[in-house]
Amino acid sequence: MRVGVAGAGGKMGREVCRTVVARPDLELVAALDPLHSGADLAQLIGVDADGLQVSGELDALTAAGAEVVVDFSRLEAARQTLAFCAEAGIHAVVGTTGFTAEDLEDLGRRFAGPAAGAPNCIVAANFAIGAVLLMRFAEMAAPWFDGAEIVELHHDGKLDAPSGTAMVTAERIAAGRAATGSGEFPPDRTVTSLLDGARGGVGPAGVHLHSVRLPGLVAHQEVIFGAVGQSLTIRHDSYDRASFMDGVVLAIGMVAARPGLTIGLEHLLGL
Amino acid sequence: MRVGVAGAGGKMGREVCRTVVARPDLELVAALDPLHSGADLAQLIGVDADGLQVSGELDALTAAGAEVVVDFSRLEAARQTLAFCAEAGIHAVVGTTGFTAEDLEDLGRRFAGPAAGAPNCIVAANFAIGAVLLMRFAEMAAPWFDGAEIVELHHDGKLDAPSGTAMVTAERIAAGRAATGSGEFPPDRTVTSLLDGARGGVGPAGVHLHSVRLPGLVAHQEVIFGAVGQSLTIRHDSYDRASFMDGVVLAIGMVAARPGLTIGLEHLLGL
Amino acid sequence: MRVGVAGAGGKMGREVCRTVVARPDLELVAALDPLHSGADLAQLIGVDADGLQVSGELDALTAAGAEVVVDFSRLEAARQTLAFCAEAGIHAVVGTTGFTAEDLEDLGRRFAGPAAGAPNCIVAANFAIGAVLLMRFAEMAAPWFDGAEIVELHHDGKLDAPSGTAMVTAERIAAGRAATGSGEFPPDRTVTSLLDGARGGVGPAGVHLHSVRLPGLVAHQEVIFGAVGQSLTIRHDSYDRASFMDGVVLAIGMVAARPGLTIGLEHLLGL
Amino acid sequence: MRVGVAGAGGKMGREVCRTVVARPDLELVAALDPLHSGADLAQLIGVDADGLQVSGELDALTAAGAEVVVDFSRLEAARQTLAFCAEAGIHAVVGTTGFTAEDLEDLGRRFAGPAAGAPNCIVAANFAIGAVLLMRFAEMAAPWFDGAEIVELHHDGKLDAPSGTAMVTAERIAAGRAATGSGEFPPDRTVTSLLDGARGGVGPAGVHLHSVRLPGLVAHQEVIFGAVGQSLTIRHDSYDRASFMDGVVLAIGMVAARPGLTIGLEHLLGL
Repeated sequence: MRVGVAGAGGKMGREVCRTVVARPDLELVAALDPLHSGADLAQLIGVDADGLQVSGELDALTAAGAEVVVDFSRLEAARQTLAFCAEAGIHAVVGTTGFTAEDLEDLGRRFAGPAAGAPNCIVAANFAIGAVLLMRFAEMAAPWFDGAEIVELHHDGKLDAPSGTAMVTAERIAAGRAATGSGEFPPDRTVTSLLDGARGGVGPAGVHLHSVRLPGLVAHQEVIFGAVGQSLTIRHDSYDRASFMDGVVLAIGMVAARPGLTIGLEHLLGL
Repeated sequence: MRVGVAGAGGKMGREVCRTVVARPDLELVAALDPLHSGADLAQLIGVDADGLQVSGELDALTAAGAEVVVDFSRLEAARQTLAFCAEAGIHAVVGTTGFTAEDLEDLGRRFAGPAAGAPNCIVAANFAIGAVLLMRFAEMAAPWFDGAEIVELHHDGKLDAPSGTAMVTAERIAAGRAATGSGEFPPDRTVTSLLDGARGGVGPAGVHLHSVRLPGLVAHQEVIFGAVGQSLTIRHDSYDRASFMDGVVLAIGMVAARPGLTIGLEHLLGL
Repeated sequence: MRVGVAGAGGKMGREVCRTVVARPDLELVAALDPLHSGADLAQLIGVDADGLQVSGELDALTAAGAEVVVDFSRLEAARQTLAFCAEAGIHAVVGTTGFTAEDLEDLGRRFAGPAAGAPNCIVAANFAIGAVLLMRFAEMAAPWFDGAEIVELHHDGKLDAPSGTAMVTAERIAAGRAATGSGEFPPDRTVTSLLDGARGGVGPAGVHLHSVRLPGLVAHQEVIFGAVGQSLTIRHDSYDRASFMDGVVLAIGMVAARPGLTIGLEHLLGL
Repeated sequence: MRVGVAGAGGKMGREVCRTVVARPDLELVAALDPLHSGADLAQLIGVDADGLQVSGELDALTAAGAEVVVDFSRLEAARQTLAFCAEAGIHAVVGTTGFTAEDLEDLGRRFAGPAAGAPNCIVAANFAIGAVLLMRFAEMAAPWFDGAEIVELHHDGKLDAPSGTAMVTAERIAAGRAATGSGEFPPDRTVTSLLDGARGGVGPAGVHLHSVRLPGLVAHQEVIFGAVGQSLTIRHDSYDRASFMDGVVLAIGMVAARPGLTIGLEHLLGL
């Protein structure tokens, strides 16, 4: 499989390049990044890249015969790259975030799949398989418990709280409740609060979120469900940016066989 | 709903009696237990039971107009109770363990459901909803990781290891791998073992099980999945025998609407 | 050792009675509780108590020859009971809470120890050995990390947040920092808060506290310390009121040998 | 403080070099490693090192005016380096492992401290402050519980089990029991073992050790203590080799003020 990487000079892009280079079943044929145009890719990623130079031009993808492009870039750049790929018949695996509903509709039209003479596209906000499973399991478990709270723990350099993944997890729990008619969790019975300034808050369906920020931590999330006499805890620990790579490789391997636009890694996992 | 309890004098049976008595939507109409025949149920369960006496005879169920029987007794007794219920048109919720494949076939014929003019039956080895979800999630997660280990933790009075739930969980992980063609996990790479006598072992699909036994603990189980840069942990804590009651109540509520024989609580959870 | 129990009809008092009755090295000789005066203790605690009746009068303690009194009652009652014990030469183990600094000074004068011809007294806010160790360890670890947060988890019937133990733990962490001149932890760097209404807050030394409230949980507390590349977590799980009994038994066994007034179980643990 | 690093080309040595370079209060003046003699240190460690070249000769330390040497090398090399430092009046911080009792005696004679006109030396097997605290806390907690088990979790590339730290932790627990006369924990009551081949074993004082090996994990250890109604868990997570650096920096800062030979980081932590 001939792979091009868009946003090759970013943190995720460089990790994708290293991953593709390391796998015998994948071939890295193009690295795109206007900010590093002309750079030696090997220098950028710290491993041998067969002499590949970073390019600033989209037609480097067609010139190199890329079959699939992995895009971890910025929103504006990604819009152009994906329009180009759709035209050129190149499948796309997209981790860039910020797409609007209109963007996704547009992508659906462009990447209409082989039956429409077009390539396919997989867009996902989170490529960590464990995080995607956690969210799905939380949604499935939600109707069967009397309460749920989320504790997410990150390094102290993280500036927002709660984390985006925690927010989405709370929404998924609410969706799981709604789908079975089980509604919001019972309201909080706390009547005395001795302190204020807590990090976190109350999210959808009454789910409480707690944000821990400590030096040394990486990215961790725990969902705790409670019912009479028991609790169920689902925890995802991400120790390294490499945790996203299994999901990216999975998407590269499946994109040719998944007609049209797929939104969310969970569909590749058969969840 | 008019409920009879078979094995009413056992630990689980008494808990079921207390639970049924406490719920406004359920009515406890018969308590069966040959070992406590004639006893005042209130004395046995420590809460008011409307003057109900424990009976040693099956026809107490029909005499009381029971619509569903909950059976937590011994294998031999359960066989007779269930044959009686099937004849008498009484649905059954069964937590007694030890049924053979032949028993289950026989139950399937007897509890053939309304279309066959027969009542329904739900049999489950585990009524703790959290444990049932854990096992299902473990099965679903299994194909997507490179390794899985189970740590189960129980009070020091538990005489067998690993726990039955841990053994079933390992089988479910193996089933999840087999269903997707992902096979056994890679073999253990440990070459130096400094100690022996560890509690636990290697189970299906190469899953390692670890059994912790400590005073104070109740019943806890953790499944840990690992892949590049991440881990996913699913943990169930059971603090109290009451943790089984949510599942029992769910089954009582659903048994009339689930034609025929249902094996396993997971089917009631839509998993 | 001849033991009297004051507040014998309360939840803790009844547990203490059961514990004393069950131990061959202790003899329960008096049970005091004005609210249950004249009651059969066996009925109250559900186990055989050698025919002992609950008394409403303090001189039941001297009449029974009690060598030590365990007091889990209310503040006002405890003040009287302890004044009586000090006069009567009976050692005291006290779990009643709410004493003021003046109360403790007064107790120090009354329980001046054998050298002063007086009995001894041990007062502790928390008799769960694990919780006491956790607090001491948190204090010891505090100077060596760059941040600390506390997550305490309780059943949803708990009406205040954070828990008293969590508040004391934060104070102990602050004390550990102060004692080594390491001061407050660096301030929180969070700049975007997406939700509000979080349960918990910021305590002494800048320690963040998070309060989880879920059905099924009992009483759990976790302190997480972070530093470059690592974290240290200390967790106490209390599954049962019985978790306090080891500490009570320890105090009963040591009170005769510890001259004067001892405040805090940690001193008995040699911490 | 002028610092030399011995074993500068090893994994730990390079990390130490980076750490020293990054701190304004420390100056890296010499990098020793016969295997990389003549190499540009900046190339080796990936950050600017003020033009420093790796040297293969011990007198580079004196030539550069090193006040303290940090040694993470091999046993044989370390013996020579330390003999040289003792002669040259250079303090030493040593993370190299494998020293015999005779080696330590010899170091004690050589690094006799200022009163003897000699420099000081700190030797430690583990520089992760969290791991050192965990071991000390486990030792302190040991006498107060009725059972203890250790679960250590590492990446699947680790070839030995249980980990060295887990073995030492079990020894420390046994020492804590012995020091208070509490002896071995009660024997295991398991009578039925359904599987074999478990990773781990039974260590000192009857402490069970469990070794989990999974891809994605880094280095984690949990000690669980149990008593009636409660458990206490102490867990250390090491996410990165950088977790050792706080301890190394601490030792560099304290070595000049600690006369003679100090064995174990715990002494620097006042434990």
